Amino acid sequence: MLHNYEELVDAAQKISKNQKRLIRVAVAGGHDQAALQALARAQELEIAQPILVGQQEQIEASLQTISANLSDKMTIEPVVHENEIAPRTMRLIRERQAETVMKGKIKTAILLKSVLDKVSGLRTGQLISDVVVVEHPKENRFLLISDGGVNIAPDLMQKVQIIENAVLVAHALGIAVPKVAVLSAIELVNPHLSSTTDAAIITQMNHRGQIANCLIDGPLAFDNAISIEAAQEKGIQSPVAGIADILICPNIESASIFAKSLTFLADLPLAHTCMGAKVPVLIPSRADNAHAKLLSLALSVVVSNYLNG
Amino acid sequence: MLHNYEELVDAAQKISKNQKRLIRVAVAGGHDQAALQALARAQELEIAQPILVGQQEQIEASLQTISANLSDKMTIEPVVHENEIAPRTMRLIRERQAETVMKGKIKTAILLKSVLDKVSGLRTGQLISDVVVVEHPKENRFLLISDGGVNIAPDLMQKVQIIENAVLVAHALGIAVPKVAVLSAIELVNPHLSSTTDAAIITQMNHRGQIANCLIDGPLAFDNAISIEAAQEKGIQSPVAGIADILICPNIESASIFAKSLTFLADLPLAHTCMGAKVPVLIPSRADNAHAKLLSLALSVVVSNYLNG
Repeated sequence: MLHNYEELVDAAQKISKNQKRLIRVAVAGGHDQAALQALARAQELEIAQPILVGQQEQIEASLQTISANLSDKMTIEPVVHENEIAPRTMRLIRERQAETVMKGKIKTAILLKSVLDKVSGLRTGQLISDVVVVEHPKENRFLLISDGGVNIAPDLMQKVQIIENAVLVAHALGIAVPKVAVLSAIELVNPHLSSTTDAAIITQMNHRGQIANCLIDGPLAFDNAISIEAAQEKGIQSPVAGIADILICPNIESASIFAKSLTFLADLPLAHTCMGAKVPVLIPSRADNAHAKLLSLALSVVVSNYLNG
Repeated sequence: MLHNYEELVDAAQKISKNQKRLIRVAVAGGHDQAALQALARAQELEIAQPILVGQQEQIEASLQTISANLSDKMTIEPVVHENEIAPRTMRLIRERQAETVMKGKIKTAILLKSVLDKVSGLRTGQLISDVVVVEHPKENRFLLISDGGVNIAPDLMQKVQIIENAVLVAHALGIAVPKVAVLSAIELVNPHLSSTTDAAIITQMNHRGQIANCLIDGPLAFDNAISIEAAQEKGIQSPVAGIADILICPNIESASIFAKSLTFLADLPLAHTCMGAKVPVLIPSRADNAHAKLLSLALSVVVSNYLNG
């Protein structure tokens, strides 16, 4: 089981070492300078090998911003027109020339449209959702948070898929039976607050085996999801309360505000990747610095290896 | 202007000193041991004087849990039946025998029902909402967060009142023109995400003078509300972005998860009080420890003094 970012980066390095070649990242819009910084570092650490998809001249110009020694080793997958970038990136995955996708300089909507294309995309039938992995600031373990990136106001069955995607990431990190807290503002069911009723339904679906390979409990307020003392004070009997691995937020705002506050108020970098397609799709936020992007690359490598394993 | 909890406690002490008597807190259900711990400390620091409303025997039994020296100085307002506690607490305020209300051992719903009673309550016509005041972990100033306590899914006009209540608290803290960020997951208007459209409307209402004595901007994502660099990277021109004093969350879950994560992951105690009634109504959460309750008492004193001033 991986407990922290150091172990995550180690694990990504080991995967590449065992396979005797680096995991290949197809970068849609390879001339993105912020992405190149993180990719150069990932290559240097032998975590991943970038394949830069885009217009040759633009990419070559951007490559001059990083050390020549590293840029020499990067592969360019040239396209003539900008609108070929996303489809070509998909083709690299389908033809097994790359194992994971990273968004470079391309609009998220355009990249996701290609990912979801029924003929040429990477659809699995599963919802696409973003999963954040952050070091617990007080314990040597990870917390997973979803979905602050893709789904605006997920309904019941979309929440189930958001959970399934997060559970896959937890499994990839070696958490055999992740504990999933379905969060609301309170731990009691309130018929006027759909985040509490959805959480109760989802918990019972888990009890009936309709959501497998994890332990789910909800509704839980943040304090009783994360603190054993807080859960005990409220008299909550639960295998999840106080020790949750995965925190499922009821809507995109609560996940986004929560995760970003960890970065901007508590200085915790976030690793994250989109799940639900055939391979992890890394869509960095502008809020992610180079270190956070590197951690997201390591996460994608570990998840990609788990999905293929 | 008050910048941190130390200054807040100092200010509460000075208010009591200037008035030559302590601000009186009517405690509904005065036999609550957790509340008594904080009240004893508030009395010791000369921040506030408790008036314990409840059944005499129960209160006397609870008072034995705190130091005799302090408990001697506490006033008991005895009632015969439990259901008299909330109405009697309201009467103490109406008859100017107390300046602020604190919830002790009584159900929140019962206390709020008395507060909102049209004849005997403390109604002002304004919505009741909870305002959190927390020290910015990286700057010497306060951040205000609302509403994680009372309103489940506020509509547009309820959000306006939530802002007005938070602005009053900011004024009480000496922030003359508070900067208000209306948060969503993104900073662009998305017609499918009502938190962004509400935020845009509220911003324009502020421009038209319909919400006064503050500067409002939204929608803002958390990062561009709190970080000047993040706001600049997105090219946001705004007098609020990056330097917001007040963070208005779009729903109860996002405010609750955000505020509680600050306590449970970043060890930041939260002061908070409900606004919208004639006096501040302090409803401590079970997640608040004695120190947080003391800070909430100091906040209530400062706000009460401002409302009367």
